[in-house]
Amino acid sequence: MKLLSTTIQAVEPQSAEIRQLATEHLCNLTMPRWALGRILDLAVDLAGITRSLTPPVQRKNIVLMAADHGVVAEGVTEQPQEVTRQMIYNFVNHGAGINVLADNAGAKVTVVDIGVAGSLDKLVANGKIIDGKIAPGTNNFTRGPAMSREQAIKSIETGIAIVNNLAPDTDVFGTGEMGIGNTTPSSAIIAVFSETSELDTIVDRGAGLPECKLPLKIAAIQRGIEFNRPNPQDGLDVLAKVGGFEIGGIAGIILGAAALKKPVVVDGFISTAGALIALSLCPAAKDYMIAAHGSMEKGHRSMLELLDKNPLLNLNLRLGEGTGAALAMPLLDAAVAVMTRMATFTEAKVTDKGL
Amino acid sequence: MKLLSTTIQAVEPQSAEIRQLATEHLCNLTMPRWALGRILDLAVDLAGITRSLTPPVQRKNIVLMAADHGVVAEGVTEQPQEVTRQMIYNFVNHGAGINVLADNAGAKVTVVDIGVAGSLDKLVANGKIIDGKIAPGTNNFTRGPAMSREQAIKSIETGIAIVNNLAPDTDVFGTGEMGIGNTTPSSAIIAVFSETSELDTIVDRGAGLPECKLPLKIAAIQRGIEFNRPNPQDGLDVLAKVGGFEIGGIAGIILGAAALKKPVVVDGFISTAGALIALSLCPAAKDYMIAAHGSMEKGHRSMLELLDKNPLLNLNLRLGEGTGAALAMPLLDAAVAVMTRMATFTEAKVTDKGL
Repeated sequence: MKLLSTTIQAVEPQSAEIRQLATEHLCNLTMPRWALGRILDLAVDLAGITRSLTPPVQRKNIVLMAADHGVVAEGVTEQPQEVTRQMIYNFVNHGAGINVLADNAGAKVTVVDIGVAGSLDKLVANGKIIDGKIAPGTNNFTRGPAMSREQAIKSIETGIAIVNNLAPDTDVFGTGEMGIGNTTPSSAIIAVFSETSELDTIVDRGAGLPECKLPLKIAAIQRGIEFNRPNPQDGLDVLAKVGGFEIGGIAGIILGAAALKKPVVVDGFISTAGALIALSLCPAAKDYMIAAHGSMEKGHRSMLELLDKNPLLNLNLRLGEGTGAALAMPLLDAAVAVMTRMATFTEAKVTDKGL
Repeated sequence: MKLLSTTIQAVEPQSAEIRQLATEHLCNLTMPRWALGRILDLAVDLAGITRSLTPPVQRKNIVLMAADHGVVAEGVTEQPQEVTRQMIYNFVNHGAGINVLADNAGAKVTVVDIGVAGSLDKLVANGKIIDGKIAPGTNNFTRGPAMSREQAIKSIETGIAIVNNLAPDTDVFGTGEMGIGNTTPSSAIIAVFSETSELDTIVDRGAGLPECKLPLKIAAIQRGIEFNRPNPQDGLDVLAKVGGFEIGGIAGIILGAAALKKPVVVDGFISTAGALIALSLCPAAKDYMIAAHGSMEKGHRSMLELLDKNPLLNLNLRLGEGTGAALAMPLLDAAVAVMTRMATFTEAKVTDKGL
């Protein structure tokens, strides 16, 4: 608990002063006022986050948290649980979507076993993945809490510790995940935080659950919430009762990055569930989150509304792994390039009349 | 006229066969079905355009067409006309938005004087820009056609010839432009093609015209259309009567790229006006256009509807120059990376059950 509490205490809001300086500088660049729109908003955020008018963003690392979920016993997904483990081999062998998209963005990928069912000892021994395993999957949350409160804390602290280790070589963090069934705990989390009883407006088909089986998924989430009664005012309680280890790990990545005043690009539905846990524990951490994309999973919209974030991209993604974060990362480079390399009206001898 | 007609005749639709092969391949990759959404749609388009399952997209060139507009005499913009020329120096000196964003995307920028008022001879002599000047700006279209039909053809053929020259070193083209006042002819073009009489739903503030002066801009466009009566069935007539040289040049870039089976990333409002001219002359050219972003300029939505295109980005841009095209280009690299480098379920030994 000590690492979590000291991390939360270290999170300060963005610097209003540097935001103001960045805004003034951007208004002097050779273009109509704010004509690069959200790229300029992003530049101001990066300045406010890093306390710099030349924010470092070159060294990127997407931390991919993998875990399994006891709730799959309820038939909430048709994919076998072994796919979580198979996909970790795919990540290590550089064959997955996140591998090629991270490459394309110049980002590293750090794979963490934070709770996969089954052994990954060989990959740990070879240094291919980080061993942060808390347990081999969560418990089935329809019959009790997914994990203990201590495990919830540990999952978040695992994320924080990884960020602290990577920080000396990392300017920008990204979040990613893998875990068969993990749209179910993520849906439960947004259901709890939004205090909605209309689960059908939030719960969607994940990796491809047939429409006819959606009621089963909704019912499992409903039972989990009714049985556990998570307290929406207590992010740790929500995480413990209906969450997942990778979701806690992602919350930790976000809190760790925020404490270090580094931007963190939040991927899609599951990552944003982690962001909601982080927000609940530390509202100021929101200032460090950059929402990468709006997911096809319909509950993502409610999540982003709670976070008051407008995602950079809308590309009908529903893959996870951090792929949306990777796709959004070139926009951070673009924002910094604009802020640091464009000429001012004076420098370029361009008339700024009429703008 | 010969270059224009032979170019149009050379344009064939995308290859349905390669699109099908690409789709089948993408469905075998290690992710839930179509889980990378529009990135996969883009991959299929790039395959269909280039007739290849490994579409070349590395060598990018954004052709920036610059020209002036006689209609500025009507007070449709508050920026002085000399800014067009000043900005060309800014492009050459690498200080503009397009310079830093093209760099960020790994794209070259080719600047063309297709109709700027005032001499740019020194820059032409030094090889810094291409001389394609048709006239030192168009005529004021409220009092007659903006240009002759011959000039309209010549502007398009200038774009085609530049594409043909650049093609041996270019995989992907982008469109860009600079021209004080050019939201006015672009608005007139969409007004004509959409055959709307409600100009206030289309005409917007461009680089920053004060709200109180918008009626003046709308009135100028209305007079231009009423006086010239452009024929919406004849793209050359629309271009000649209410267009601009850079808009014709952009239509030429698009037609040239389409004839060579190369993708062309279409920037914002003015570029899409050029795309509408290209569409009118050659409907099949649409298959080669990739809409980069949805502009803040409200008429852009109507343009994209006529083209039946959903832009890749929505970042509240209103700068032009090709900046939106540059911002979208990394997504083409991402799409090709996914199609060419991800593992299939079989290769990665990942179970595809339940997807």
